Amino acid sequence: MPETVSDIGEFGLIDRIDALIQRQGTRAPEVSVGIGDDCAAFQPRSGYDILMTCDAMVEGRHYLPHLITPLDLGRRAMTLNISDIGAMGGVPRYALISLGLQPAIRVGDVEAFYLGCIEALDPFHAVIVGGNITRSEGPNFIDITLIGEIEHGLSVRRSTAKPGDVIVVTGYPGQSAAGLHVLLSDLAGDEWKGHPLVQAYARPSHRAVEGAAVARSGLATAMIDISDGLLGDLGHICDQSRVDARIYQKYLPISPAFRDGARHLKRDPMEFILGDSDDYELIITCRPEHALEVQSLIRSIANVPVTAIGEIIPSPEGGRNIHMTSPDGVTRRVNRSGWDHFAR
Amino acid sequence: MPETVSDIGEFGLIDRIDALIQRQGTRAPEVSVGIGDDCAAFQPRSGYDILMTCDAMVEGRHYLPHLITPLDLGRRAMTLNISDIGAMGGVPRYALISLGLQPAIRVGDVEAFYLGCIEALDPFHAVIVGGNITRSEGPNFIDITLIGEIEHGLSVRRSTAKPGDVIVVTGYPGQSAAGLHVLLSDLAGDEWKGHPLVQAYARPSHRAVEGAAVARSGLATAMIDISDGLLGDLGHICDQSRVDARIYQKYLPISPAFRDGARHLKRDPMEFILGDSDDYELIITCRPEHALEVQSLIRSIANVPVTAIGEIIPSPEGGRNIHMTSPDGVTRRVNRSGWDHFAR
Repeated sequence: MPETVSDIGEFGLIDRIDALIQRQGTRAPEVSVGIGDDCAAFQPRSGYDILMTCDAMVEGRHYLPHLITPLDLGRRAMTLNISDIGAMGGVPRYALISLGLQPAIRVGDVEAFYLGCIEALDPFHAVIVGGNITRSEGPNFIDITLIGEIEHGLSVRRSTAKPGDVIVVTGYPGQSAAGLHVLLSDLAGDEWKGHPLVQAYARPSHRAVEGAAVARSGLATAMIDISDGLLGDLGHICDQSRVDARIYQKYLPISPAFRDGARHLKRDPMEFILGDSDDYELIITCRPEHALEVQSLIRSIANVPVTAIGEIIPSPEGGRNIHMTSPDGVTRRVNRSGWDHFAR
Repeated sequence: MPETVSDIGEFGLIDRIDALIQRQGTRAPEVSVGIGDDCAAFQPRSGYDILMTCDAMVEGRHYLPHLITPLDLGRRAMTLNISDIGAMGGVPRYALISLGLQPAIRVGDVEAFYLGCIEALDPFHAVIVGGNITRSEGPNFIDITLIGEIEHGLSVRRSTAKPGDVIVVTGYPGQSAAGLHVLLSDLAGDEWKGHPLVQAYARPSHRAVEGAAVARSGLATAMIDISDGLLGDLGHICDQSRVDARIYQKYLPISPAFRDGARHLKRDPMEFILGDSDDYELIITCRPEHALEVQSLIRSIANVPVTAIGEIIPSPEGGRNIHMTSPDGVTRRVNRSGWDHFAR
């Protein structure tokens, strides 16, 4: 019988996780107190602001355990928080991981989850400094708080886009949602395992290094990561900046693999691009004269497309609207609700 | 029909909570980005360390909604995190609140919960800067991350108690557990509502102000708050400091109200003092020559008993054991497992 969490108890599990982090995680000399005290403590760097974000995932709602390995789940859960830090232009430093666990869960799966988290944090020399483990009679849940830092004054917000700005997007938004559809469909045979769409769902990238470079360049007027879908997150920029946006359907990036996968799914890629999708790509707005520089800056870091898809326009109603121009030149207002957890 | 969370959706709820925090919460000029961006951001104070803690509560396991009002639940959830910051000697500054909510929950109850959180944070001018709201098909859950600060080098840890130190405790540990038993028993009529035991459960104090004063005094060798029971948390000090502890049963503090309530419950108060209880009182260890000063320092802040209950002793086995001397002078090793979420 594989060892379960109820076999070793809460404190037994904390000891095991602590040992794993000691063994596998990065050392952080500025952390004076880590796991095993009332709080973790670190000495902040002078001249830097502290960034804080948190995100929760509930089993059955945000992930299905038979579609993702515990290692990939840990990577993914940490990636979405890293993406939030990166979308401000910051660098992740300290993570607190809070888990609600059913007693029958395997200790090995919990350890694999933490390894995935460590794998995602390692490139930044970021460390797990604390957290909480509790029993859940309902579904397992994960809540991660990630603390980052950014040089004072450099953070890029959602609320500062201006009419005339170009809207630039990294990667292929919608691929993650399409990958999840592949896994949920009867397509999900072994030949699909390494497919770029499935990889986009199971092992998503984040653009935190690119986001930090964009912030340092001072060229972005606003930035956000895509976790509520392209329209959902562009909508957040519109709301907070009190502007409208116009995007051109013909410019929306679709990779050959994306087009091919959508064909197998008998779906239009546009459904995925314009629907809910958590791709952890970036939407960046900048003055038109800076668009090429922003694009080449990101391409110098990652082999990823950086596409201008439209522009910010004034909003007669004080924000909220996204207009899309179809290939035949007709412009319509599109529903930009994005992902609302209670709406369905 | 009262308005529910599913009526207004995730973003509707976030807007409402944001408005409530703007209206009711403290202003914090060093917070440059608050709720509504990818991350919250603040500028840390020079010469201070940052403290981080998080704690989760699951409905049905950590609280029963018919035994605590949403307002008290918010206060209680925040108090236990404030207590962790205080047990290091720090001051709470920024909170991130992550909620998993059933769609049928009332918006008014969620707002009352946040008001309770704000009420607990207000004395410290601490602010809610972010969080996460997700739908839960299982029980509602609450996960709070609290960020605090403390002057560099002043934090008091669990791992630094030394043989010969006196063990001091604030308040009446066990009262919270006894209060919960009152609520769960058929005693719970209206005449019990204001009873100190019930208040100890529903509206627990924390000792964060006292903890910060103790840290500044430099007199404590170790400090922890009581959230896993007196023995559980004294046990954490023993583990981390690799020492044993001896406590004297006759010195364990029992208030008249506690003794009276236990009699009505037909229970020995010792069961509550030595069992699981989350009282958010402090256990402090210090050199014997400093015990009176520590006690009078705390009493100068709060009208609360501060009792020396025993001493730290060397551990032949490298820590883990608590010995209790009964009133008739017999010393026995006591089970110090405290609260283990998976053990039952």
